[in-house]
Amino acid sequence: MAQATDLPRNESGISTTLGVLKQQFGDRFHAGQAMREQHGHTTTWITNQPPDAVVFPTSTREVSDIVKVCATHQVPVIPFGTGTSLEGHVNAPAGGISIDLTQMNKILAVNAEDLDCVVQPGVTRQDLNTHLRDQGLFFPIDPGANASLGGMAATRASGTNAVRYGTMKDNVLSLEVVMADGRIIRTAQRAKKTSAGYDLTRLLIGSEGTLGLITEITLKLQGIPEAISAARMSFPSIDAACQAVMTTIQYGIPVARIELMDELNVKAANAYAKLNLPETPLLLLEFHGSESGVVEQAETFGAIAEEVGGTDFATTTSTEERNKLWQARHDLYWATLQLRPGAKGISTDVCVPISRLAEAVTGAQKKAEELDLLAPVVGHVGDGNFHSLVLIDIEDADEVARAETFVAWLADEAIRMEGTCTGEHGIGQGKMPYLVKELGAATEYMAAIKDALDPLNILNPGKIFSR
Amino acid sequence: MAQATDLPRNESGISTTLGVLKQQFGDRFHAGQAMREQHGHTTTWITNQPPDAVVFPTSTREVSDIVKVCATHQVPVIPFGTGTSLEGHVNAPAGGISIDLTQMNKILAVNAEDLDCVVQPGVTRQDLNTHLRDQGLFFPIDPGANASLGGMAATRASGTNAVRYGTMKDNVLSLEVVMADGRIIRTAQRAKKTSAGYDLTRLLIGSEGTLGLITEITLKLQGIPEAISAARMSFPSIDAACQAVMTTIQYGIPVARIELMDELNVKAANAYAKLNLPETPLLLLEFHGSESGVVEQAETFGAIAEEVGGTDFATTTSTEERNKLWQARHDLYWATLQLRPGAKGISTDVCVPISRLAEAVTGAQKKAEELDLLAPVVGHVGDGNFHSLVLIDIEDADEVARAETFVAWLADEAIRMEGTCTGEHGIGQGKMPYLVKELGAATEYMAAIKDALDPLNILNPGKIFSR
Repeated sequence: MAQATDLPRNESGISTTLGVLKQQFGDRFHAGQAMREQHGHTTTWITNQPPDAVVFPTSTREVSDIVKVCATHQVPVIPFGTGTSLEGHVNAPAGGISIDLTQMNKILAVNAEDLDCVVQPGVTRQDLNTHLRDQGLFFPIDPGANASLGGMAATRASGTNAVRYGTMKDNVLSLEVVMADGRIIRTAQRAKKTSAGYDLTRLLIGSEGTLGLITEITLKLQGIPEAISAARMSFPSIDAACQAVMTTIQYGIPVARIELMDELNVKAANAYAKLNLPETPLLLLEFHGSESGVVEQAETFGAIAEEVGGTDFATTTSTEERNKLWQARHDLYWATLQLRPGAKGISTDVCVPISRLAEAVTGAQKKAEELDLLAPVVGHVGDGNFHSLVLIDIEDADEVARAETFVAWLADEAIRMEGTCTGEHGIGQGKMPYLVKELGAATEYMAAIKDALDPLNILNPGKIFSR
Repeated sequence: MAQATDLPRNESGISTTLGVLKQQFGDRFHAGQAMREQHGHTTTWITNQPPDAVVFPTSTREVSDIVKVCATHQVPVIPFGTGTSLEGHVNAPAGGISIDLTQMNKILAVNAEDLDCVVQPGVTRQDLNTHLRDQGLFFPIDPGANASLGGMAATRASGTNAVRYGTMKDNVLSLEVVMADGRIIRTAQRAKKTSAGYDLTRLLIGSEGTLGLITEITLKLQGIPEAISAARMSFPSIDAACQAVMTTIQYGIPVARIELMDELNVKAANAYAKLNLPETPLLLLEFHGSESGVVEQAETFGAIAEEVGGTDFATTTSTEERNKLWQARHDLYWATLQLRPGAKGISTDVCVPISRLAEAVTGAQKKAEELDLLAPVVGHVGDGNFHSLVLIDIEDADEVARAETFVAWLADEAIRMEGTCTGEHGIGQGKMPYLVKELGAATEYMAAIKDALDPLNILNPGKIFSR
């Protein structure tokens, strides 16, 4: 297991803060071991660093109160949504208070006419979409996990639909934020566009709780398309599948989803979800549009893919069949772990310019083989983003070392290709060394912003930067 | 004319800097009155505050050198593209050096396979699109003026195509920036998405030259659609036209452009461009897609608009006819000025949630009438953004005062409707008081970022904030 570094603890400040918050929050204050460990946990291989206590506020005012107490005593605050992040974002390397936002789960407004809504940060994407369905609306960003919308904003989440609908940065109109001094700000109005000053909305999105705590989110919504169809196609090689993806994107086909599964992943999905997919590289697609539009999109894709050797093209407009396919895709993390029972999965998350996709994916496969690692590939390939999930025996030091070599090599390789070490998982603790490699001096100005907005370094310290 | 406030000048620093830069840049250094005034000029009613000199760098390194000299002597630097901004962005209220980037006008790379390109800041959007045409690509953002792409990024420009393609914030992958200390950074890699640290790209976009000087831009490109059609439709009232817009957006029709011209604007366009449009409120549209897709979009729009009384629906796929219509739209600023020869136009730029559009536009018309002002309305109404262009006799103090009342009232009204005082023109000098009204305490954190990244306040001082 990757050892996260502990940071110096402000013991007296923490002790005082625990007393104050316990009195203030009563049974919404928890300092029990299990609760604390749960809040240091993420779906990750990074060691758990539990906070000293967990508090469950129910309002922005209460979040502000907690931050003010913590600011007074210089104690870290770590926002917590559903704990589904992958890079140790909710760990507490210097201790402190985890602010669990799950009780702030109200949908405050749905402005159907404006195609937007206002939610508290604890609302999950599935809850929101269930709420919206009757109004013919949906929120498109889907990172797989049923994450909280606050967490998704804080980590600039994206996922399968991003190829069509963008990432969280493209789907948030405005944020309400509690800043490091406890003051509450709104980053923008509800208008669809603005040029009013610095884009604090985008600065906060992806800041991983290090610049402020998101307490309200105004989200753009989409109308549920008149027609949705799903498709799948098998390919003789990863390279052929990637060629089909590249041409599809270059043609401007507005695919809503285009996901790659390599042979190992297809096998895992067949076993886990009782499917019968041909066990070769597979593309899984979704098309949104009018009845005729989705047919046209699917036909154009089919023609492109056949050119590069694609076979077994199947499309469906059945909601049930479509959901079954996508459920298999969503469960892939768990399915893949079954390829090697007992193994731990280390997720990687590189994203490269689409022209480098085939080279990057086949390179990753080759490198994993060289290092004798099992690392199936799945990817949001329309964006050039893919995950090699390295399956390792965490007790085998040599294997862990080889996995670390692979992760570092892959980040370097993506950077060399003008890509990023992290398309959607963020930096957290896990990717800190690669951020500097990737962006060099730019990270110093990021750190200057951090110092300006959080001079006491109480907001999720030890993430993104070595602070 | 609106008097812009002068700020204290660092005379000795300026004098030294002029000497150093004159020696260094030779015939690319200009301190003549005409050149200086041209560089303080914007398409605006704000008084000209010329810089002390204008320098024409040809490389990022030279921009960095200039900034280092200015930092050493604490002298303002003001980036200049084409001077088409509207809020006094290029004025030099504390004097200093205008960095004219027009000689940095190289298209450095077109990565057709990745649908992106890398340009220097002095490339104009028309030059870029001319260059791209043969490759079947285009850059969609179109603010009307043939602005430089650096200026468009710095002011978060948008315009007619934003309803479909977003604003500059949505179409830039990465920036190279010279910071206040002269160091050169890159804000992101060329991958289509990233979660690598703070979104410096978006922070710089719309920062109006106050946080750094943009020296290279990686832009997303679009494939030229298979089919483009234009359409126009006349309406019995502004309210009916706005209802048609709201329903079109709510239906999710992916219009590429949907522009409103009120009766006065139609008259102006008829006179200026020798057109024969019915002299009632008009919507002008463009559809992008497949051959069948654009027909479907136009038909759906036509049906929606007829429901609310739209008449004279005309569509065309002829490039010539389409260009003629859009040229008329682009020339509207000049055409409208002819409604009152000799008058000065004061542009406003509010943007409201689309559900408030009809109320906002008719309210603006009513208020202008009450104040006895001629203020035709044109708008990128698909985004809820419109411009009342107040035509005034600048010598008539009472009329100027009434115009100022109108501008302030309209900003307040937009803010009351959860909209913004500035959808796309930025803050500059002209909108400074409204920014605080609109975003309150958030502006203090913007200012903290400014102080952190530009501690000497040399980057375009006196813009956005009272600094």
